[in-house]
Amino acid sequence: MKNINVAIIGCNFMGKAHSNAWSRAARFFDLPLRPVLQVACDLNETALLAFAANWGWKHIETDWRKVIARDDVDVVDISLPQFLHHEVAVAAARAGKHLFCEKPMALSVAEAEAMLAEAEKARVVHYLNHNYRRVPAVRLARQLIEEGKIGRIFHWRGAYQQDWIVDPNFPLTWQLRKETAGSGPHNDLNSHSVDLAHYLVGDIKSVSCLTTNFIKERPLPTAGAAAFTAGAGGAAARGAVTVEDASLMMVEFANGAVGSFEATRFASGRKNRNTFEIYGSEGAIGFDFERMNELQFHSRHDAENMQGFRTILATEPCHPYVKHWWPPGHVIGYEHAFTHAVADFVGAVAHGTPLEPNFRDGVKCVRVLEAGLKSAASGKREFV
Amino acid sequence: MKNINVAIIGCNFMGKAHSNAWSRAARFFDLPLRPVLQVACDLNETALLAFAANWGWKHIETDWRKVIARDDVDVVDISLPQFLHHEVAVAAARAGKHLFCEKPMALSVAEAEAMLAEAEKARVVHYLNHNYRRVPAVRLARQLIEEGKIGRIFHWRGAYQQDWIVDPNFPLTWQLRKETAGSGPHNDLNSHSVDLAHYLVGDIKSVSCLTTNFIKERPLPTAGAAAFTAGAGGAAARGAVTVEDASLMMVEFANGAVGSFEATRFASGRKNRNTFEIYGSEGAIGFDFERMNELQFHSRHDAENMQGFRTILATEPCHPYVKHWWPPGHVIGYEHAFTHAVADFVGAVAHGTPLEPNFRDGVKCVRVLEAGLKSAASGKREFV
Amino acid sequence: MKNINVAIIGCNFMGKAHSNAWSRAARFFDLPLRPVLQVACDLNETALLAFAANWGWKHIETDWRKVIARDDVDVVDISLPQFLHHEVAVAAARAGKHLFCEKPMALSVAEAEAMLAEAEKARVVHYLNHNYRRVPAVRLARQLIEEGKIGRIFHWRGAYQQDWIVDPNFPLTWQLRKETAGSGPHNDLNSHSVDLAHYLVGDIKSVSCLTTNFIKERPLPTAGAAAFTAGAGGAAARGAVTVEDASLMMVEFANGAVGSFEATRFASGRKNRNTFEIYGSEGAIGFDFERMNELQFHSRHDAENMQGFRTILATEPCHPYVKHWWPPGHVIGYEHAFTHAVADFVGAVAHGTPLEPNFRDGVKCVRVLEAGLKSAASGKREFV
Amino acid sequence: MKNINVAIIGCNFMGKAHSNAWSRAARFFDLPLRPVLQVACDLNETALLAFAANWGWKHIETDWRKVIARDDVDVVDISLPQFLHHEVAVAAARAGKHLFCEKPMALSVAEAEAMLAEAEKARVVHYLNHNYRRVPAVRLARQLIEEGKIGRIFHWRGAYQQDWIVDPNFPLTWQLRKETAGSGPHNDLNSHSVDLAHYLVGDIKSVSCLTTNFIKERPLPTAGAAAFTAGAGGAAARGAVTVEDASLMMVEFANGAVGSFEATRFASGRKNRNTFEIYGSEGAIGFDFERMNELQFHSRHDAENMQGFRTILATEPCHPYVKHWWPPGHVIGYEHAFTHAVADFVGAVAHGTPLEPNFRDGVKCVRVLEAGLKSAASGKREFV
Repeated sequence: MKNINVAIIGCNFMGKAHSNAWSRAARFFDLPLRPVLQVACDLNETALLAFAANWGWKHIETDWRKVIARDDVDVVDISLPQFLHHEVAVAAARAGKHLFCEKPMALSVAEAEAMLAEAEKARVVHYLNHNYRRVPAVRLARQLIEEGKIGRIFHWRGAYQQDWIVDPNFPLTWQLRKETAGSGPHNDLNSHSVDLAHYLVGDIKSVSCLTTNFIKERPLPTAGAAAFTAGAGGAAARGAVTVEDASLMMVEFANGAVGSFEATRFASGRKNRNTFEIYGSEGAIGFDFERMNELQFHSRHDAENMQGFRTILATEPCHPYVKHWWPPGHVIGYEHAFTHAVADFVGAVAHGTPLEPNFRDGVKCVRVLEAGLKSAASGKREFV
Repeated sequence: MKNINVAIIGCNFMGKAHSNAWSRAARFFDLPLRPVLQVACDLNETALLAFAANWGWKHIETDWRKVIARDDVDVVDISLPQFLHHEVAVAAARAGKHLFCEKPMALSVAEAEAMLAEAEKARVVHYLNHNYRRVPAVRLARQLIEEGKIGRIFHWRGAYQQDWIVDPNFPLTWQLRKETAGSGPHNDLNSHSVDLAHYLVGDIKSVSCLTTNFIKERPLPTAGAAAFTAGAGGAAARGAVTVEDASLMMVEFANGAVGSFEATRFASGRKNRNTFEIYGSEGAIGFDFERMNELQFHSRHDAENMQGFRTILATEPCHPYVKHWWPPGHVIGYEHAFTHAVADFVGAVAHGTPLEPNFRDGVKCVRVLEAGLKSAASGKREFV
Repeated sequence: MKNINVAIIGCNFMGKAHSNAWSRAARFFDLPLRPVLQVACDLNETALLAFAANWGWKHIETDWRKVIARDDVDVVDISLPQFLHHEVAVAAARAGKHLFCEKPMALSVAEAEAMLAEAEKARVVHYLNHNYRRVPAVRLARQLIEEGKIGRIFHWRGAYQQDWIVDPNFPLTWQLRKETAGSGPHNDLNSHSVDLAHYLVGDIKSVSCLTTNFIKERPLPTAGAAAFTAGAGGAAARGAVTVEDASLMMVEFANGAVGSFEATRFASGRKNRNTFEIYGSEGAIGFDFERMNELQFHSRHDAENMQGFRTILATEPCHPYVKHWWPPGHVIGYEHAFTHAVADFVGAVAHGTPLEPNFRDGVKCVRVLEAGLKSAASGKREFV
Repeated sequence: MKNINVAIIGCNFMGKAHSNAWSRAARFFDLPLRPVLQVACDLNETALLAFAANWGWKHIETDWRKVIARDDVDVVDISLPQFLHHEVAVAAARAGKHLFCEKPMALSVAEAEAMLAEAEKARVVHYLNHNYRRVPAVRLARQLIEEGKIGRIFHWRGAYQQDWIVDPNFPLTWQLRKETAGSGPHNDLNSHSVDLAHYLVGDIKSVSCLTTNFIKERPLPTAGAAAFTAGAGGAAARGAVTVEDASLMMVEFANGAVGSFEATRFASGRKNRNTFEIYGSEGAIGFDFERMNELQFHSRHDAENMQGFRTILATEPCHPYVKHWWPPGHVIGYEHAFTHAVADFVGAVAHGTPLEPNFRDGVKCVRVLEAGLKSAASGKREFV
């Protein structure tokens, strides 16, 4: 079997999740190419060395341009904060590397379109890691929709709720500044929800959006957190929060459905609740990532006295991806969706098969989010 | 004990629920006045006679003006479709009757304000039957909020979902025509949600709204359904649906919280799901009427490793209204909230104590809903 | 319409629930006879007067024998503690009264058999109020089983859990003494579960039982609590608890299924959790009274990738009893099952139709429970 | 860092789960020794080669005796069906190998005691893989109990339910024959439940047990399935099922609590539902493996009007093992508990620290199960 050599750029939280996926995919899936963890890249050499040793990355680099210049790299895995995606992705595409890119795609439609254009021009495989599409229960939702089990869709009701900055003393990390994050949960979380809505319902036509800030100022993180993937640190002086704390959207889909979105880091008690409900003429669906192995499903075709939302435990061999893991009822976790993505990505590279979500999906998603921010500012419904 | 004589106008579904409440309140609650079911009024005399006999209404009338003119009536219970509320309520107030009025209050802010003005001028007790405020779990939610258990509120996330008109052959009943219903779920269902949001979060400052129609035309109901409370009938020719099928809103509260609302009759599998989530700086709350005996509660003050949403089964003697019913764990149902309303109403009449929600609350609610419809038309955020 | 005159004996908690049912049944159901609340009977005349006035009982008696001697009584409703059931029921049957009897039936198989013999000899309608059979979700469970949706039954897994005596200072009320209660939760709660198992699975053939006491002594209730329906009072001296605190059973059914039962008043956090699971060759069922409007149902005949336990909200017009109440999603409560029982009982009296559960079912239930106590003492499997 | 060389014997389903754990532990945990996947052993060389290549086992052997004789092996991981545990474990202990042994421990108390004796004599680390102890939510349950949050325990109510042999045409695999499996779900599933009950409640004193067979005969698996870890095959002739299909137990704990157990492969719709409830004087706990990231917890010390079962999402850094994985709300799956076991095992080998559950725990568990089978046969309560 031939190898497929991977370089990862960005070795913080997402670097860990991606490294795990690159390591595990070949063990659980029959891959047409063998992923080789060739190069790991981040700024802090000490941390990087430990990271590479732990995960089995063969080489390290602290300059991402050198990574891209290497001949022994087939795939560039961009696990960086989003403000760095555009520059790295464009350069990597020009160097002919396949792209496995963390979400959200970019800071703007312009950036995203440039990334797509370069990737298409280079004819490389491009993948945007909206990982929730590869949760078995979510993919099952898509199958049910495709089979007509939901019928004409009327409603999408989604929310992505976290609570990690409810404490006003949580510091002003890079996620809370516009120049590094572009936006707050509107980009970070709503991008997932919008991608899922595109995947499950269809294209979005118009957006009304409302954003707000609950905490205007926060302590600055302590110095020393200089790496581009620096986490939260101690507090000192205070600075302004320049991204929204919460974002609400109402949308019209091209197919006539309507949808609501809610993204927040201020939902006390919700840790990573990526949830949606879909209602259609034949049935309905519900999902909550905190119970990611379950899909709620209701069919109007069940006998009248036996209708109800059923909890499908999506751990059967017939459910997407599941047969590669464990027996029924032996649930899987967060990182498994990343492994599924790697497996599908390697297949796409080997066979030239289509892969989604890709940069085209990403552009569509960024367009909706950008229209949302425009609407939040104008107070008007904006068309995508 | 003195009597309090009640006349009910409108003897269809709501007439049944109200009659039951007037009958049961004195049996479970120690009331300062004894409710007497004095007069029942509706158009169809045959049906009315049976209704009155069944529920023990002593007299009947088919002309509501005669009811209001009677000396032996202290309270007028308006259980009519909303397009008739204004005329009856104004006349009854002028006649000095206390008012127990079904929701939604009226077709417009102008109507609602007139009703309030007349009721205040007449110094009668006025009550608007947003029954969900008197579900023990909801009242408990209010108590927790008042006690500071939720802290500063960031989010209201509400929805009121039904599915009774998903079938395109469901006929064009009065609820689906603008002239009789004023609006669709936006008034019928969102009025409940907005009232609860006012009750639990505070005043609403701005509204963005999106309404839509999924089914534009429906079969006309069969003739003979002429009474002002006619139900669904068979089909013949078709007519245009002139109220919205679904309504989404995003709001800003005066206190800085943001909220989302969703009212629909197209949520397959949801029968009467009046649900909301409230997130604050100290905790969170969740409610779903289909499990009306339960309140979800999360406290950020629980020990770190023991935090989580707890299901409070609101059937303890210490919970609002519960000690009048059954032992712990012996759940109550939909109609009990109506009985609570009657008990509180009788107390307010006897003692002159304040009662909510009243016509003042109703006006506030109609203002928000009217701003919502304006926003749906303009595509802009509208201020209340 | 002809009347059916009812006398109730025992006007404490169960008296309240029964009076409510006798009052409400005719209002929601089309009954062939009109129930008249003719006589209420209890020992304490002052309390009785208030009770009768509240519920509309026309006459009162403090001697139950006089009640039974009256000509204007058709039905005797026995709402007494179980140690009094036998004597009253036998006398009432001999007087030709129809019997509406609270559960558990009696202190022993001998008592229960005598009650049945007299009732059959007198050819009166006899009903034993295992109210849970008439919860719509439970009756739906029976329908599904009858329709073959569960198939051959393998497992019954039931529990009836409360927590009202976890506090060691809860006093030694009549429920905790053998001479008045016969047994503890084994009779009080397991009788419900065994009745449901008979109803849903079939006859029980053998029993293994384990009983225990967690708190051996408790404060005596204060004096003055002399009525045969006395509740909990203050504490003084201490006395021995002479009934079990918890009872576990394992059974074999005649049809080859096996079952487990667990009845306790020491399940902290469970208020009135009457729950069961039934597993069969074609599907499964689950129920929990604390969510009494819901039935869990799983079908092995659903498509392989769409199987799961569905939550049937048993509030549709097609569900048993529901069309008499409210629209879909408007849940009902504990006392509604009593109203259903009254409606069915009146029908049985009027039409001579069979009614269950009756004294025959009660005898069967007491036999199982008595075999259980024998097994608890012997440590051996006992045959019923 | 020094290495710790592992040999695995048995490379079917459990071999996969164990190999994954040996591979992943060092990546997520700071281990004092580096696990090296040294030797993999199974009968079928072709399959073994693929297995070893996939998981990175350096060497293969088809004779387990040769594995044990190797000098380059520190740990023997016994991933075999239980009828082979005794012989291999005894031999490996005598060879001075540390033992990482899959459950259930052995076919009999005698076998288990011999294994323990040899392991203690050899002073090796011995671990029995009751993996559920290392699910974070379960370990949290233990912490809450140790902290007194549950108080004196009254009740254990456990069940382990699967449904993989409901179909009568499922073949007679090794799990359904006494000579290979020893017992059915009584050993396979109840062993987990009994181990958890020991871990969370305490020692079991007496057992009453009921076992049954629903399907007496099944098709024989097709030939060619000769390996000691053969899976299900096609059908031909039929043979007798010689282990029970379901096992129910009632137990007394030494501390006065009582418990119920239910193990079955006939619970339609339950895939791997390892569930328990624990009730005590101060609170209660609930767990269901199909929602393994959640722990239900009720405290009697919460304010009276705010009590309820709370769902603790055990994905916080403060929860056992969690900080090594992902951020809050990013759930983990079945195999993670195996990784936790490997991490703890390596620590125990390196530091000589105690490790549970070990062979001593295993002996205790087998004693209870053996007493259970004795009781099932005698129909009497048996003492352990």
